[in-house]
Amino acid sequence: MSMTKKVVEVCFSPSLFNHHADSSATMVVVDILRASSAICAAFAHGASSIIPVAEAEEAKELKSQGFLVAAERDGKVLDFADFGNSPYNFKRETVEGRSIVYSTTNGTKAIHMASIGKEVIVSSFLNFSATAAYLGSHAEKVVVFCSGWKGRFSLEDAVYAGALADRLIAEYGFSTICDSAIAAMDMWQLAKPDLVGYIQKAAQRNRLQKMGLDDVIEFCHTPDYTDIIPRFDGECLQPICENIELKNAI
Amino acid sequence: MSMTKKVVEVCFSPSLFNHHADSSATMVVVDILRASSAICAAFAHGASSIIPVAEAEEAKELKSQGFLVAAERDGKVLDFADFGNSPYNFKRETVEGRSIVYSTTNGTKAIHMASIGKEVIVSSFLNFSATAAYLGSHAEKVVVFCSGWKGRFSLEDAVYAGALADRLIAEYGFSTICDSAIAAMDMWQLAKPDLVGYIQKAAQRNRLQKMGLDDVIEFCHTPDYTDIIPRFDGECLQPICENIELKNAI
Repeated sequence: MSMTKKVVEVCFSPSLFNHHADSSATMVVVDILRASSAICAAFAHGASSIIPVAEAEEAKELKSQGFLVAAERDGKVLDFADFGNSPYNFKRETVEGRSIVYSTTNGTKAIHMASIGKEVIVSSFLNFSATAAYLGSHAEKVVVFCSGWKGRFSLEDAVYAGALADRLIAEYGFSTICDSAIAAMDMWQLAKPDLVGYIQKAAQRNRLQKMGLDDVIEFCHTPDYTDIIPRFDGECLQPICENIELKNAI
Repeated sequence: MSMTKKVVEVCFSPSLFNHHADSSATMVVVDILRASSAICAAFAHGASSIIPVAEAEEAKELKSQGFLVAAERDGKVLDFADFGNSPYNFKRETVEGRSIVYSTTNGTKAIHMASIGKEVIVSSFLNFSATAAYLGSHAEKVVVFCSGWKGRFSLEDAVYAGALADRLIAEYGFSTICDSAIAAMDMWQLAKPDLVGYIQKAAQRNRLQKMGLDDVIEFCHTPDYTDIIPRFDGECLQPICENIELKNAI
C-alpha cells in the first residue's frame, strides 16, 4: 500500500491559479459551459486529437494550414472558424478521425496554464465517473482547475469541482483541507437534487440565454456520456480510454 | 425615488480583486478570522482610530513614534508589537481613546487594495446589521471583498459575504448577477443553522487551532455586537455610528 496521502484541491478561477500551481499535481481542467464539455463530446464522437489554442490569431493561422477550427470569443463564433463552442457542433460526422484546433474565451487558456502540473486532463459531467476512476488510480495530488468566466468565479464549474472532489473523497481515498473544495462540495450537495435548475441561477447561463446559446445546458450536465479522458501532452489533447461501466450514476 | 439599480457583488479573494475593482463601488472589507472582527471590536471598545499598515516595517517605524501597535504574521505576534490580532486584545482598558496601528497577514492589505472604490468600510458579524443598514442608505454598488488567506478563498469570509448579500437583497432592494454572490448566499443558508459548527470545517479554523488561537471563533461569529462601522479615509479607519437598534438578530 502506498503511504502517500491523496489530496484534492479546488482552484475557482485562473486568477487564483498561482496559489495552486504545483508541479507534482494532476491538473483537471473544467469549463462546463462549454469548452470542457465540448472537448469531451468531440472525443466521444471520434475526434483523433484537439489542439487547444489560446490566441485567436494562432487559430486563424492553423485554419489556413487546413485544420478544422472551432473558435469563439464571448460566445460568438469567430469569422474564420468552421464552428464555435457548442458541444452540438462536434458531431460524429464532423469530427470523426479529425484533428481539431480549438480556441475559446476561457477553457483553452486554462489548459495551457495547467501545463505546469505533472499531468493535465480535461473533465466535465460528460466524463465524470471515468475522470474519478482515472484520478483514483493515477493521481496523488489533484487540483480541479475551474476555468471560470474571464478570470471570475463561475457557479457551474464550482459545482462540478464539488461533485468530483466528493467522489474522489468518498470512493478513492482522497482528503482535503482546501476551503474551496469544502465550499464546492457543499454547492454540489445543494445542486445535486436539481442540477439544471440550480445552474439556471448562474450568470453564465444568463449570458448564454441572452445569446440564444442555452440549448446546451442540459447536455453539458449529462453525467457519464463517455469514458474517454482528454489528456494534454503540452501540444494537443489525446483521448485516453478509462474502461469503466457507464451507468449514468451520479 | 432613485432609479439607480442597487447591486451587490462578492469578491472571494484579493487574487480576484482586479475583476471587481470599480471606482463607483462601496467596498466592504471582510476578514472574519480575525482582522475585520478585531477592528470592529476595537471601535466598539472606544478606539479613536486605526491605521492599517500593510508592511511590518512600517508598523515597526510607527511603534518607535509611540503608537500602540497590533501586528502579526501567519498568526504570530511580531516581536516589536504591543499585541497581535485577537479581538480579545482590543479591550476597552487598552484601546479607549487611542489610535492604533494595525498590520496583519491578509486584512490590512485588502483595506489598502479596496481604496480604489468610492468608499471603503470594514465589516464582520460584529457589525452585521449596522453595515447592511449603512449600505442600504449610502451605497448603490457594493463589492463585499473577502480578504481570504494569503490570496486564497476562505470559507468564513465567503459565508459572511453571503449573509450580507442576502440581507441587502432581502431588505434593502439590492440585486445580483454575480456567481460568487449566489454561491456565497447558498453557503450562508447552509451555515446559518449552526454557524460555528460550519466554520469548524474551515482551513483557517484549523490553522488557528494548531496555534491555540481558536478561542476567538465564537466571538468572531457573534452578530450585532456593535453598531459602529469603521470607514477608511485613505489613511486611517474612523468610526461611523449607524444608529440602529441592536437586537442580535441574524
